Amino acid sequence: MSSSHVPAASGPVSPSQSADVVHRPVPGPGTQLAGGLLGDWQRRSSAVSLPLAVTQMEAAGNLGNLRLAIAASDGTADEPYRGPAFMDSDIYKTLEAIAWELARPGTPHAADAVGAFTAEATELLEKAQQPDGYLNSHVQVTGKPRYAQLASSHELYCAGHLIQAAVAAHRGAAAGESEAARQAAAGLFAVARKFADHLVEHFTGTSLNDGHPIIETALVELYRETGHAPYLQLASQFVEQRGRGLIGDSGFGSRYLQDHEPVRTSATEVGHAVRALYLEAGVADVAAETGDRELLAASVARWTDMVATKTAITGGNGSRHSGEAFGDAFELPPDRAYNETCAAIASFQWSWRLLLATGESRYADLMERILYNGFGASVSADGRKFFYVNPLQRRIDHFEDDRPGRRREWFSCACCPPNIMRLLASVQHYLATTAGDVLYLHQYTAAQLAARLPAGDFELAVSTDYPWAGKVTITVRSAPAAEAGLALRVPGWSPAAELTLNGAPAPTAGSGGYLTLTRQWQAGDTLTLDLDLSPRLTFPGRRFDALRGTAAVERGPLVYCFEQADQDSADVEDLALSGAVLSGPAVAGAAVSGAGLAEREVSLPGVGETVAVTVPATHRPAAASVPFAAEPDASAAAGEPATATAIPYFQWDNRDGAAMRVWLPVQQPGSAGSGGDA
Amino acid sequence: MSSSHVPAASGPVSPSQSADVVHRPVPGPGTQLAGGLLGDWQRRSSAVSLPLAVTQMEAAGNLGNLRLAIAASDGTADEPYRGPAFMDSDIYKTLEAIAWELARPGTPHAADAVGAFTAEATELLEKAQQPDGYLNSHVQVTGKPRYAQLASSHELYCAGHLIQAAVAAHRGAAAGESEAARQAAAGLFAVARKFADHLVEHFTGTSLNDGHPIIETALVELYRETGHAPYLQLASQFVEQRGRGLIGDSGFGSRYLQDHEPVRTSATEVGHAVRALYLEAGVADVAAETGDRELLAASVARWTDMVATKTAITGGNGSRHSGEAFGDAFELPPDRAYNETCAAIASFQWSWRLLLATGESRYADLMERILYNGFGASVSADGRKFFYVNPLQRRIDHFEDDRPGRRREWFSCACCPPNIMRLLASVQHYLATTAGDVLYLHQYTAAQLAARLPAGDFELAVSTDYPWAGKVTITVRSAPAAEAGLALRVPGWSPAAELTLNGAPAPTAGSGGYLTLTRQWQAGDTLTLDLDLSPRLTFPGRRFDALRGTAAVERGPLVYCFEQADQDSADVEDLALSGAVLSGPAVAGAAVSGAGLAEREVSLPGVGETVAVTVPATHRPAAASVPFAAEPDASAAAGEPATATAIPYFQWDNRDGAAMRVWLPVQQPGSAGSGGDA
Repeated sequence: MSSSHVPAASGPVSPSQSADVVHRPVPGPGTQLAGGLLGDWQRRSSAVSLPLAVTQMEAAGNLGNLRLAIAASDGTADEPYRGPAFMDSDIYKTLEAIAWELARPGTPHAADAVGAFTAEATELLEKAQQPDGYLNSHVQVTGKPRYAQLASSHELYCAGHLIQAAVAAHRGAAAGESEAARQAAAGLFAVARKFADHLVEHFTGTSLNDGHPIIETALVELYRETGHAPYLQLASQFVEQRGRGLIGDSGFGSRYLQDHEPVRTSATEVGHAVRALYLEAGVADVAAETGDRELLAASVARWTDMVATKTAITGGNGSRHSGEAFGDAFELPPDRAYNETCAAIASFQWSWRLLLATGESRYADLMERILYNGFGASVSADGRKFFYVNPLQRRIDHFEDDRPGRRREWFSCACCPPNIMRLLASVQHYLATTAGDVLYLHQYTAAQLAARLPAGDFELAVSTDYPWAGKVTITVRSAPAAEAGLALRVPGWSPAAELTLNGAPAPTAGSGGYLTLTRQWQAGDTLTLDLDLSPRLTFPGRRFDALRGTAAVERGPLVYCFEQADQDSADVEDLALSGAVLSGPAVAGAAVSGAGLAEREVSLPGVGETVAVTVPATHRPAAASVPFAAEPDASAAAGEPATATAIPYFQWDNRDGAAMRVWLPVQQPGSAGSGGDA
Repeated sequence: MSSSHVPAASGPVSPSQSADVVHRPVPGPGTQLAGGLLGDWQRRSSAVSLPLAVTQMEAAGNLGNLRLAIAASDGTADEPYRGPAFMDSDIYKTLEAIAWELARPGTPHAADAVGAFTAEATELLEKAQQPDGYLNSHVQVTGKPRYAQLASSHELYCAGHLIQAAVAAHRGAAAGESEAARQAAAGLFAVARKFADHLVEHFTGTSLNDGHPIIETALVELYRETGHAPYLQLASQFVEQRGRGLIGDSGFGSRYLQDHEPVRTSATEVGHAVRALYLEAGVADVAAETGDRELLAASVARWTDMVATKTAITGGNGSRHSGEAFGDAFELPPDRAYNETCAAIASFQWSWRLLLATGESRYADLMERILYNGFGASVSADGRKFFYVNPLQRRIDHFEDDRPGRRREWFSCACCPPNIMRLLASVQHYLATTAGDVLYLHQYTAAQLAARLPAGDFELAVSTDYPWAGKVTITVRSAPAAEAGLALRVPGWSPAAELTLNGAPAPTAGSGGYLTLTRQWQAGDTLTLDLDLSPRLTFPGRRFDALRGTAAVERGPLVYCFEQADQDSADVEDLALSGAVLSGPAVAGAAVSGAGLAEREVSLPGVGETVAVTVPATHRPAAASVPFAAEPDASAAAGEPATATAIPYFQWDNRDGAAMRVWLPVQQPGSAGSGGDA
């Protein structure tokens, strides 16, 4: 077998050869999306969103701040710094997205303004960087002392994003086709290393720490890229010193900063969700590179707790606007869910690290849930607008906000949009892993894959309309010389899966959420996985107070939602799932999946192609306004027969911005169907 | 009849003779509490809480700020201003509480430090007040320009509280027994008038407005006390100009400040709850004094909407921590309810004004609900600690906060504690009103009442253990010369009420929530009202998503709660109301009040005397941690038989600070009572 199609360059998260991981990512541009929903999202982000971000870096003042920092060094700065203290990080995330873009064969940005942004920004960064390596436009322009307010200054947060961008440039753009991009990438990498070396000198052995994590995972990645151990050691130091009350007061208390309890003993996620989840990525990275199983186990335990008690059905995290915080266990308000887009991205990144560390499919399950739902909804159908907050319900008639909670083009705190872009630009790296002579497919989407196994190189073509259709066809383009395994994830939501090899039932070994077929593969072999995407109802656990008495519609990996635009004349808040969907053995425990649910393919203006699902419902407009009464609300057990229509949650808010809800009340027992007043 | 026992001095809210109101308050110290729960609260506040407040005015720096303001006028201030911009208002609320205290016969504060505080503070205020009448320690100490940041500076908010305190001093302390107090009251009133005259000069005819209302109602009350029309005109101007986007940006948007829509057209309460409700008190006052029925109708419509869609069962308002805001219609999360204590007080004050304006019992109903629940819970049993936020659920095992949400001795933003004290010091003024020759009793508690009717003077003694017992005995001590009416409110929660006169059924006319008996009264006549206080279940309306599938226990005017300390070994989060309480005709619409509920009198350490209520329940500890499943959570329909115990909500958090919930899930139909796994 020729190995020419399997390059060595890597994507995000590249464990060192000595790392304690069960799975390893599949390196390089040998994996490419080939259409499909994820391919569409990646193309849209590249063609529409990313140019917007580059424009915003000038319009919002991010680049201007760098110019002011340059001018400040010779005292000629004559304008005030613009925006929040972490404006530099938006530049870095944009640079990271561009780096992954430029790594893809045939990128449209090789010779356009987006592609040229790296050189432009890097030149400013090189000039702004101080002689000892320090770089932060906010501190340099305002003249505030370095590292004096680490609880809130975001200096290491910005440094972390710089390093991540530089690592991406080193792995991505530097491996791409553009010579100019390679040169800019080298410059960016040099700036980042110089800053990192300064950080090692300044922070190693101290008890200083930043209020907003990300430097931890960034330093581990830089260690992976350079082999320079002090980076790993400093990352480990930051991880270990957190939770000891050393960071100081950012004004929101110690839990907000995860500074209330060390990561080795903390049992549950608390505080600012994005901080907590970026920290976990760093914890998992440090554990992997140091072989620290205790550290890994603590992170895994928190992940398990988070998924069981603090994660929305969309994969979102953060139940509180106040403090942008996780909230208590079982606190999952659909209407007031915060579910910041950046938290979804951070959880996705953390879960990927735990998947590599353990090989357990549950991490890929959550990644899929996040990808198609909590993360997927963050971009408008046209790629031009973004959600910062991702609730599961909007009562538009009564919405109490000066802004009605719709997607926006940009934000004064613009952390989310370029974060979305850096994930989408590199999303193909999260499809597959290898473990020994087994190639694991975790996410299904039309793609080309190339992986190097000890048995030899594997090249596959994946053909599927997933998540719209459940059939996934994998054609072997080039097989390893020796026997090798192909392991296909059976999603946790799927009750069953059928696998055929060249048209006949495949003799798989199924374990741990994967169907594995080990054999001597031949070019032309075709493996077909069939997943049942019938729409189904999903019910919340008893303790989720805010979800009691409701159910949601799911279909494959997609969570559905009921938007006002699809409900004919019924107010979406007056709809309930028909009690009939719960009739028979359901309440005694038998599954009711799919009872009465129907689907149809439609194209909706503003939304695009979709599969709508209808479900038997009742409709009963509110009559009297008695908030509390001596008897159960009879209208909850009544109503005219109706049909409620749902579309995928990721497609919401592409029309009139009216009401939406994921969790629909279930009609209460009693005078069901009578429709009469009680 | 002698009229010597019916003084002319008034309490809070004293409509002018020309005001367009249906009811009028009963003036003066002729009305006094005579023990009972409200009497206990008033005594506790006077003896324990108020001395704490006076101490805090020094310890927290409020008086110090005034001294700095005095020093600033001659340039000798050498310390920084302390606390938030509205620190002066805490002094004013404390002064108001003391003024009502000193008005009561035999007040213990006539000769102690509390009583002396008015003179001490007034002397500082007189010295700090600038020659033109302006007075604000924050502006004077920091040197910021006056009225330059009205959206957030709270300058008129502080002025409003000064005026309210001065009006209270004028009506209360000035009518009391202490000569020193009368002198201090006169001094305070002079300071307030001088500031008010400055405000009239500075603001009349401008479009300037304060971000935090209260100046409106304060100016109307000052108009009532002085007859000086420009005060009323300025209040009217502030009310009319609000909602036109003229106030500017406080950083939270226009709804936060109720500056999004004029009060004549706005249909629902939005934004910061305390701001909104203080504004409404001003709207109602302006409407009453100008006879503007359209303005009144707008306020009434918002009150109606608020009670139907945005008010907790405790009478609390404000569903969002973020922005301390009302939230959407039907958004009533028990766990994340904000329900600021000041909002309860403001709603109580607004409702009183609407009761005077309309004579409708629903306003007294809400006042009762607030008084015994949302407001009542704000003080610890010992009177030493206070709630700022009043949720209806606390999941203590998982509580995500650096502070576990317990009552505290004081706050950096200390608006609530002295607000509580000014209400309790004057609470007897809210018991009764007159309308023509009818004396209305709205709230039942042991008290002496004296009222002047056209028919003559009425003196009554009310004897009752309400709200613990439902029997209310009213003895006529002195009757009017002519025929007169006594109207007794039948609370909205009461399905029936029995009234007897001198032991025989009374021939009442019942209408509009009142039982009215009109006759020639004789001294010694005894009227007895019997209300059924059997504990009952209350169910939420269908649209309250966060309350779906739950019920609460109430008993008379008291909302009950389930605290962990009373649940034996069961985790309060694993309890559900037995499905049996819903069996039979309940779900077809018949009332289930009291089904299976039992009560017993107990004395609980830390809590005090109480009536505990038990309710049939099931108990099922959480098993697996599956957040979402393809079938309804079977454990919601199962569980071991158990008994859940509830105590009055106002008594919660006086023990271990563990979990509490008002709304308990109702066991779901299905395998009810089987206790087995499904």
